[in-house]
Amino acid sequence: MSWLLDETHLADLARGATLLGTGGGGDPYIGRLLVAEAIKEHGPITVLDPDEVDDDLFVIPTAMMGAPTVMVEKVPRGTEPVVALRTLEERLGRRAQATMPIECGGLNSMVPLLVAARAGLPVVDADGMGRAFPELQMETFGVYGVHASPMVVAGDRHETVVIDTGDDDVRMERLARACAIQFGGAALIAEYAMTGADVKRVAIPRTLSLGIGAGRAIREAREAHRDPFAALAEYFAGTIYRNVRPLFRGKVTDVERRTTGGFTRGACTVTGHDDGVLELRFQNEHLLALRDGVPVCVVPDLICVVDDTTAEPITTEGLRYGQRVVVLGISTPDIMRTPEALAVFGPAAFGIDQPFVPIEQLVTDEVRQPLAV
Amino acid sequence: MSWLLDETHLADLARGATLLGTGGGGDPYIGRLLVAEAIKEHGPITVLDPDEVDDDLFVIPTAMMGAPTVMVEKVPRGTEPVVALRTLEERLGRRAQATMPIECGGLNSMVPLLVAARAGLPVVDADGMGRAFPELQMETFGVYGVHASPMVVAGDRHETVVIDTGDDDVRMERLARACAIQFGGAALIAEYAMTGADVKRVAIPRTLSLGIGAGRAIREAREAHRDPFAALAEYFAGTIYRNVRPLFRGKVTDVERRTTGGFTRGACTVTGHDDGVLELRFQNEHLLALRDGVPVCVVPDLICVVDDTTAEPITTEGLRYGQRVVVLGISTPDIMRTPEALAVFGPAAFGIDQPFVPIEQLVTDEVRQPLAV
Repeated sequence: MSWLLDETHLADLARGATLLGTGGGGDPYIGRLLVAEAIKEHGPITVLDPDEVDDDLFVIPTAMMGAPTVMVEKVPRGTEPVVALRTLEERLGRRAQATMPIECGGLNSMVPLLVAARAGLPVVDADGMGRAFPELQMETFGVYGVHASPMVVAGDRHETVVIDTGDDDVRMERLARACAIQFGGAALIAEYAMTGADVKRVAIPRTLSLGIGAGRAIREAREAHRDPFAALAEYFAGTIYRNVRPLFRGKVTDVERRTTGGFTRGACTVTGHDDGVLELRFQNEHLLALRDGVPVCVVPDLICVVDDTTAEPITTEGLRYGQRVVVLGISTPDIMRTPEALAVFGPAAFGIDQPFVPIEQLVTDEVRQPLAV
Repeated sequence: MSWLLDETHLADLARGATLLGTGGGGDPYIGRLLVAEAIKEHGPITVLDPDEVDDDLFVIPTAMMGAPTVMVEKVPRGTEPVVALRTLEERLGRRAQATMPIECGGLNSMVPLLVAARAGLPVVDADGMGRAFPELQMETFGVYGVHASPMVVAGDRHETVVIDTGDDDVRMERLARACAIQFGGAALIAEYAMTGADVKRVAIPRTLSLGIGAGRAIREAREAHRDPFAALAEYFAGTIYRNVRPLFRGKVTDVERRTTGGFTRGACTVTGHDDGVLELRFQNEHLLALRDGVPVCVVPDLICVVDDTTAEPITTEGLRYGQRVVVLGISTPDIMRTPEALAVFGPAAFGIDQPFVPIEQLVTDEVRQPLAV
């Protein structure tokens, strides 16, 4: 069933999308302000359930790309993603009937809402990453045969670049990234145009709702003075993500972060209050968690660093020495764990020399009371 | 009057265009082979005099971009510039009635001929650089109000990128360069679409003929055992370039060359047989000649290094220790020396802290017998 998204959903969505950003995806804060403004001006946004869209609905997903460290500082005008969408419509000779996220984690939970409000389009409740990923080819869309080209990169002076690399989404990513760097490290994009029939086949369903639901679970637990970790575990158990696993509790004792080649890369060490060390490696997003050198969560499963009391998610660019954190692992849906999917965004795609093992096999403990202090 | 260009013109054009390349522009050798093949298949090419074209003739210039060091090693398929042209036609919704060089020096004397032969179009005898320059905004086209956008960059797998930066040709250059680097350091382009009326206003006329004429002057002097330097001076005196000045004679004693950021940058020292030193600085093309520290030729005037006996032009990537060379300076046409033009491709545009002074004021000696040994 379609439903209306209004300003009251945005705080929960921002929190939940930051959690699903698994450290990256860009802080949704500025995107949230832009969406709130657009909803105030244009009214609430119609959200379409992916299982119910017409097979011939024409969908153009929209997003921001760039290093999260840049995205939090380079505020978009807000009109660029609409320029990207319109430019792609011109190239394709067809008007979009809906937009959709390509990524449900971080800022990109908000960008399609901005486009939806401004362009008067509904948004489809689905995405192609099921979390955040650093590169544009890391999409179930491409894995299952819907490719990015032609795609548009738009800059803040409404410059446009239309890239067509046929079915080579990696080459598309390289070209788009090179352009985004020229646009100052971040840019707005429209890509992976598809039909409603494609959405049903290649997208991860209801991940916009998932962000709102996860954010709401944390908020409501806090309001009720319940353990937010238990609330999260309970919420995810009712979704296709299913499992939340505690990976570690401790203090951030080291963060190394570089913005190179259009990405934020680095590592973080969390030291246990009693003993033990958890190491996190990231490229925009967390990719690998090693507990005392042993893998406990591997991409594409989600590694989420949150405040150890409030469960507020912390992004990789927000990591600071001394933060007291809990690190959670969350399992990804089956559509993201097939051999074809793992070839595109499994550990080997990031140069990580570890096999993918599902979090629920690596960590058999479930989240139980009392995890919160 | 229009005329037919066939295979018999190509050797002279290659030599003359290398001279006009002022060290850069890419060695025309491979382009010449591709054009010879295309002429063999499709017949000779109609060359249109720029003063005689219809005002509403629709012209799409075509070219290759990239570091000369890459262009001599990365052989194009030959079909990419036609893909670039066709993609720009689609974007503009209008078929080209002619193509034209954007650059008369080096490889880009040949690329429009390849397109002309393959696409069955005439080529306009004019260009926008009047020599070779390293960056795409360095065009009289843009100086006088015809901008590059929208423009197309095509890769060797027929990937296309359509860039639209409005009237900001510098931003276009940055984006196109970033894409060319992703395409391996060189790519084929179509840009600066214009009408016949524009051509008359913004282009440097008859620079394709100029390349052929300069190459022929050298060849015929050699065949007649005359001094090729005197022959060149005599030939240029009858063109809008007018002045050829001897800058130095000596031996190449040092060459420094780096391929960075998509350009070949460096410096060359020529040591005199008796005394004195000439220093050349280049970014793809020679930009400044200093004789014993004193400027003797400054961009956009042409600095041409040639063999001291045969007057065969030597490109910056062809410079080798021990070569015995003559360095010539050639004055550029008035359209390239206005304040607006110098702002775009004068010394300051290259970060050179020297004012532009016309070669004919810096060097008052004319080429006289006996310059050849």
